[in-house]
Amino acid sequence: MKKTDKAMFFLEQKDMPTKWYNVLPDLPKPLPTVLHPATGKPVTPDDLKKLFPMALIMQEFSPERYIEIPEEVQTAYRLWRPTTLHRAFHLEKALDTPAKIYYKYEGTSPAGSHKPNTAVAQAYYNKLEGIKRISTETGAGQWGSSLAFAGALFGIEIKVYMVSVSYRQKPYRRSMMEAWGAKCVPSPSPDTKVGRDMLAKDPNYSGSLGFAISEAVEDAASREDTHYSLGSVLNHVLMHQTIIGEEARLQMEMAGCYPDIIVGCVGGGSNFAGMFLPFIRDKFSGKKKDLRIIAVEPESCPSLTKGAFAYDFGDVAGLTPLLKMYTLGHDFTPPPVHAGGLRYHGMAPIISHLHNLGLVEARAVPQIATFQAGIQFARTEGILSAPETMHAIRVTIDEALKCRESGEAKTILLAHSGHGHVDMAAYDAYFSGKLEDYAYPEEKVKEALTRLPKVAV
Amino acid sequence: MKKTDKAMFFLEQKDMPTKWYNVLPDLPKPLPTVLHPATGKPVTPDDLKKLFPMALIMQEFSPERYIEIPEEVQTAYRLWRPTTLHRAFHLEKALDTPAKIYYKYEGTSPAGSHKPNTAVAQAYYNKLEGIKRISTETGAGQWGSSLAFAGALFGIEIKVYMVSVSYRQKPYRRSMMEAWGAKCVPSPSPDTKVGRDMLAKDPNYSGSLGFAISEAVEDAASREDTHYSLGSVLNHVLMHQTIIGEEARLQMEMAGCYPDIIVGCVGGGSNFAGMFLPFIRDKFSGKKKDLRIIAVEPESCPSLTKGAFAYDFGDVAGLTPLLKMYTLGHDFTPPPVHAGGLRYHGMAPIISHLHNLGLVEARAVPQIATFQAGIQFARTEGILSAPETMHAIRVTIDEALKCRESGEAKTILLAHSGHGHVDMAAYDAYFSGKLEDYAYPEEKVKEALTRLPKVAV
Repeated sequence: MKKTDKAMFFLEQKDMPTKWYNVLPDLPKPLPTVLHPATGKPVTPDDLKKLFPMALIMQEFSPERYIEIPEEVQTAYRLWRPTTLHRAFHLEKALDTPAKIYYKYEGTSPAGSHKPNTAVAQAYYNKLEGIKRISTETGAGQWGSSLAFAGALFGIEIKVYMVSVSYRQKPYRRSMMEAWGAKCVPSPSPDTKVGRDMLAKDPNYSGSLGFAISEAVEDAASREDTHYSLGSVLNHVLMHQTIIGEEARLQMEMAGCYPDIIVGCVGGGSNFAGMFLPFIRDKFSGKKKDLRIIAVEPESCPSLTKGAFAYDFGDVAGLTPLLKMYTLGHDFTPPPVHAGGLRYHGMAPIISHLHNLGLVEARAVPQIATFQAGIQFARTEGILSAPETMHAIRVTIDEALKCRESGEAKTILLAHSGHGHVDMAAYDAYFSGKLEDYAYPEEKVKEALTRLPKVAV
Repeated sequence: MKKTDKAMFFLEQKDMPTKWYNVLPDLPKPLPTVLHPATGKPVTPDDLKKLFPMALIMQEFSPERYIEIPEEVQTAYRLWRPTTLHRAFHLEKALDTPAKIYYKYEGTSPAGSHKPNTAVAQAYYNKLEGIKRISTETGAGQWGSSLAFAGALFGIEIKVYMVSVSYRQKPYRRSMMEAWGAKCVPSPSPDTKVGRDMLAKDPNYSGSLGFAISEAVEDAASREDTHYSLGSVLNHVLMHQTIIGEEARLQMEMAGCYPDIIVGCVGGGSNFAGMFLPFIRDKFSGKKKDLRIIAVEPESCPSLTKGAFAYDFGDVAGLTPLLKMYTLGHDFTPPPVHAGGLRYHGMAPIISHLHNLGLVEARAVPQIATFQAGIQFARTEGILSAPETMHAIRVTIDEALKCRESGEAKTILLAHSGHGHVDMAAYDAYFSGKLEDYAYPEEKVKEALTRLPKVAV
């Protein structure tokens, strides 16, 4: 490698994008309506104001293509943004591929992932409305710790309902939340009615993200001073993440490249949408018709590749609005893969819609193969990746190897969502041979899908 | 804060310094000679070649002011360098201080600290000499994981002797080493004679950094294919770290500032020396006479503030050359503070020499106060710092508060050595009230100092 071949692309702070990109007005077909869980009618902004500040509700349905990032949020972003775009020279060499691999690395944020991009925005808008306290849920802890960090910056009390099994398995994520001043309890908890009912029914219930959402929503709905916050899935959350892709566009220009393939992992979908939405508009417009966008999910929790495209709840108890999305059923509990951030029954409506329109591809990969890819990445590019990110790395490597076969020098852009320094137990499991591949739980999903809400749309 | 007040200073890769700074020719008085442990005579390069590649031995004694960073090392650096210089606006505001606080953050490296700066250089020079295997020791694991990463990049087998108590307490650092392909054993281990002897004498001995060094040195000395590597203390190690300060000089110029005070934590001293050496030459030359340089150490392991300035071994078994340094005695075992990287009996000869000449100040701080500072930093600047780094943050905050009293707008430059994402157990201990302040173990030190080697210099 020559010195002149740049391996990193920095954006100056003055060049950091100051607007989020809202894909809604550019969608080739409009997004299906969101429905009220009780009435089955379209939700109104008023229905949501118990849970969210009006600014976020307006963003959720906004017809504006660009939304100005408030000064205070930009200031918070500047604690770690713009993030760096890397060229994966070492990995390319190890793969002996003509492909050019770039990755945008979000692991340098305070919480170690992309999650703070929306956490600081949500905390800011809540503060602006005079909200003193926010409730939320977290699985592996990435989201809870990111909102805890944002709460510290804006002086808002944060209450996190953490999926019980993760609360016990990942005490260090909990410590991170406490370090930033948040309160974190295992879910099910005695702090909510749904939690108490569940504990009475099954004291050993190990929790799920969908259940923790039910608790957090109940908490917010029952207190005047409290709002609720979600770390993925919703339109406004995906929009806040577009800072990733907006930066990446400028950095790819600096590199003199445009991606042929964009790859990312999807749980609720916010990290990957944040990367690809600012590029997919070129596909809509026909300017980059051949751009391929590949969403990668676990084989054991394959909402996009095996789920139904239907209206469903975001949570187990059925408290959230109904979203049209790829779903495995709202009370489906995914197997305990280490990529906790990918263990969610549904998929962001925007990604679901784009997949349904044939504009976003989906691929499901088994757990062990993702760790093999993650280790290869660590030993070449140096970064110990989060288990979630390893899913995207697996497919990036697979595509680069296809280029070796075909001789094509494709440009692959990888959305690298975060580091794995708090996930070393998962690495341990891999090295000690204890890591399993979970088969797709077809029967459980089939059963869960029988409980989809009936909707007359 | 206005948009135009920059919070981060990026260096372009093309502007990354391509030379390390070697302070030896600029020292106001020459460094005391290194002595052979058996003969007490000055060591020759030949004495060291069983342990180190000749390139590093030459660097250890080099009279050249600048040493070119090899192309391959620069390429490795570019996986994460240049690192960012931050202005701590949020912390300044919380402290209500007129002081301007800047911090250079090394936590974005693959291992999460400054250690890879020298690890990749050492691995490279060993590879150049055809060495296939390197042995080393590690305390908390920062160094072992960094050398493991470097070994992965250059295809060298790494064997790490990890202090037994840390091996058990910090399994995740061990997993990081394994992720990068290194072999890690608890020290004392049955793999060396000193290890076997110790296990026979005291099967429950919990180890110390000095003892692990003895094992790693014996390992390297007894095998043809193996060299030894040290992560701090030695001149060439400090020199590799000057990439930090060389970058910081350029970035402080971008900020239009020159530091009045530079603060860093010291264990062996390499991180802090890497930061301040490129600045202290201005103090030597009289250009910046008033520059203050403050080295911060734990109150319970206070080599600079309480140790003897004397010749001593770097390890417990007395296998290393004799170095003139501030020492608490080579067989002194420090209390189990969480800042494992600062639990070393000695101090880099260069820092010891400069402290002795009155050019570097030293301050010792108690553990709990460092965590209080670290939490304040986390809740303002967002970064969860390593317990080692919190020592430097403590004194940075103290100096900024003095500025509030005096009204002086001093510029403080903090050497931020790394993140604490793998140290959350320490945060836990703090929040649960289990963290202790250890008194300075005066009697134990007094006793250990009676066993200093007799040297006729």
